[in-house]
Amino acid sequence: MFPTDPISNLAALIRCPSVTPAEGGALSTLEGMLAPLGFVVDRVVAKEAGTPDIENLYARLGTEGPHLMFAGHTDVVPVGDEAAWTHPPFAAVIAGGEMYGRGAVDMKGGIACFVAAVARHIEKHGRPKGSISFLITGDEEGPAINGTVKLLEWATKKGERWDACLVGEPTNPDNLGDMIKIGRRGSLSGRITVHGVQGHAAYPHLADNPVRGILQLTQALMDPPFDTGTENFQPSNLEATTIDVGNAAVNVIPAKASAAFNIRFNDCWTAESLKGEIIARLDRAAKDGALRPGRDPVRYDIVWNERPSHVFLTRNNALIDSLSGAVEAVTGRQPKLSTTGGTSDARFIKDYCPVVEFGLVGQTMHMVDERVAVADLETLTGIYETFVARWFGHAAA
Amino acid sequence: MFPTDPISNLAALIRCPSVTPAEGGALSTLEGMLAPLGFVVDRVVAKEAGTPDIENLYARLGTEGPHLMFAGHTDVVPVGDEAAWTHPPFAAVIAGGEMYGRGAVDMKGGIACFVAAVARHIEKHGRPKGSISFLITGDEEGPAINGTVKLLEWATKKGERWDACLVGEPTNPDNLGDMIKIGRRGSLSGRITVHGVQGHAAYPHLADNPVRGILQLTQALMDPPFDTGTENFQPSNLEATTIDVGNAAVNVIPAKASAAFNIRFNDCWTAESLKGEIIARLDRAAKDGALRPGRDPVRYDIVWNERPSHVFLTRNNALIDSLSGAVEAVTGRQPKLSTTGGTSDARFIKDYCPVVEFGLVGQTMHMVDERVAVADLETLTGIYETFVARWFGHAAA
Ligand SMILES: [Zn+2]
Ligand SMILES: [Zn+2]
Repeated sequence: MFPTDPISNLAALIRCPSVTPAEGGALSTLEGMLAPLGFVVDRVVAKEAGTPDIENLYARLGTEGPHLMFAGHTDVVPVGDEAAWTHPPFAAVIAGGEMYGRGAVDMKGGIACFVAAVARHIEKHGRPKGSISFLITGDEEGPAINGTVKLLEWATKKGERWDACLVGEPTNPDNLGDMIKIGRRGSLSGRITVHGVQGHAAYPHLADNPVRGILQLTQALMDPPFDTGTENFQPSNLEATTIDVGNAAVNVIPAKASAAFNIRFNDCWTAESLKGEIIARLDRAAKDGALRPGRDPVRYDIVWNERPSHVFLTRNNALIDSLSGAVEAVTGRQPKLSTTGGTSDARFIKDYCPVVEFGLVGQTMHMVDERVAVADLETLTGIYETFVARWFGHAAA
Repeated sequence: MFPTDPISNLAALIRCPSVTPAEGGALSTLEGMLAPLGFVVDRVVAKEAGTPDIENLYARLGTEGPHLMFAGHTDVVPVGDEAAWTHPPFAAVIAGGEMYGRGAVDMKGGIACFVAAVARHIEKHGRPKGSISFLITGDEEGPAINGTVKLLEWATKKGERWDACLVGEPTNPDNLGDMIKIGRRGSLSGRITVHGVQGHAAYPHLADNPVRGILQLTQALMDPPFDTGTENFQPSNLEATTIDVGNAAVNVIPAKASAAFNIRFNDCWTAESLKGEIIARLDRAAKDGALRPGRDPVRYDIVWNERPSHVFLTRNNALIDSLSGAVEAVTGRQPKLSTTGGTSDARFIKDYCPVVEFGLVGQTMHMVDERVAVADLETLTGIYETFVARWFGHAAA
């Protein structure tokens, strides 16, 4: 039987307790839906030193171009306080028109709908002229080093090439049809440490208080703003995420102080140019500042977090118009083309082909009582089905 | 035999390993010196819930007024890296004209010299017309709750009253005769906590970052200066001693942030008026600031450290002139009358009688290779002997 019903597809997926890094039966369930449609399914296990085996799935229907990829993940975040759930997190109970379950919107729901959309398309029109692939990881909510990145490398080595990709993450803030993501800000993290001279609080002239320096440097990171935003992006934003000294002795001036920060940056910057600006700010603050009045500049060092996320913006009209048009045709809403929010696996895919993201309403993701309106599952399936038809039509034209 | 030699007195005391809270034989050794001089010696053990027994000593020579107290402590700080000592820390080795040992200057040396001074006075002039007491604690370097405070209460209850007190702490920065302490700044500590709203670093509008608030509030504590100093005191000085968030997640805006501070304050302030000023600064910064632009004022709370040290200044001319004159007569130096540095047990004694402090050169105190010039022991004994004679002469006049 073709998996044309997104509701039963989703129920089957939710009943697999696939909290990262557990597969929980979710990929096998998905394989069971895709095989009858004619997909050739590969199960790919990735492992890196010190991390558990992670199961992933790559499935392709067709051998010719054009080639459309649907990307996503079956792993889910932990349930949190299980007792607080109105309905059990892995039971897929429907109540009040909503299906409850961990992963309902992030993002087993998106997968369930895309499977149903492809099944309906094949039922109505036969196999598309070209190829459709599912690139599904079990490691998106975790460290994400054995998921999409590895899978893309593995597939590319095998000769796979794609013309476009749709990621099924929940992108809509309030209503289905609100928002398509056509890019993402970059993300860069680092930690600065200010080195002072330890001493007694009663003899500050014999010490250099690094707390003063860390205040000055952190302030310089936060103000002024890095930019005012661009045509497609919000202003870049830096948050100081922690300051740590760990000095329990009330009378002691500590030897060092450190602060960590994370910046979400737009297309005014590359990770490298942003590092340059941050170091310029810190050097200036270190030179203007001092650990106490009239003293040497603040001594500091900085350690960058490995692997910054690079900013990207998709400009492929065939992809964006097909999706945007499908949303408008089904919902009557003109979706906002947005670059807001956190990073997603799209940041890895964008190096292989144009990528956009569209899925369910994200409000309950990662929360207790994660749930999806059953009506939305039907609507999203309709949007995906229309998108598939338009994209292949566009590609054929 | 009368203990007239400060060198052998000090060697005997150093050889007692009296690291707080251990008595180590130091008080027994002192008792052995004082008893032959005619002192009535009380050994007073103090204990508070949860703290070890602390041994103290109170010894009085004479029953009449005027009554001069010498106060100090026989406990010492830990030796630190014992292997780094040139000579063992409890061996009292003399090398290059200096005696090595933990407590040599802080402050077994002061005790050794005062004992020798009193012994010499008695040898030459007989017992003074009045009384001399030793109030010696074994708990000055530790939590200090079972030492001088308890001993003063115990003695007062017994009917003891004093006219003046000399504390034998090392007060000289460079040379014997540099500095008498005639008061001390107060000390007040507290911890502020800023309450924000936790969230994801990519969605700062859904969170309130308390790091921003703790920076604003801490900055308001540090600038501007509280005052510019007074006739007898340095400017009050605040040090932020720690800032702690403890957020290890790079992408997370934390829920709260806290900072601790210590302020050494002069006679512009009482502990209470200073608390008022600090709260006014924090309230103003909290109102002007916000955890992000355009938001509610910073929410914070403050917890004060128990038992602030109150500022005090001794104005008793008989005491100050006797001591200052003795220093000048023996060393040719006019000592600076100072209120700098940390707190000492003088802050407790000042509630019972006028108190000043004078002892050895403090440079090596609390350090590896703590040591004292043997010549300084002789000089200080001379100063103390002259002081005793002058003070009783002054009191008799
Ligand atoms: Zn997701
Ligand atoms: Zn001391």
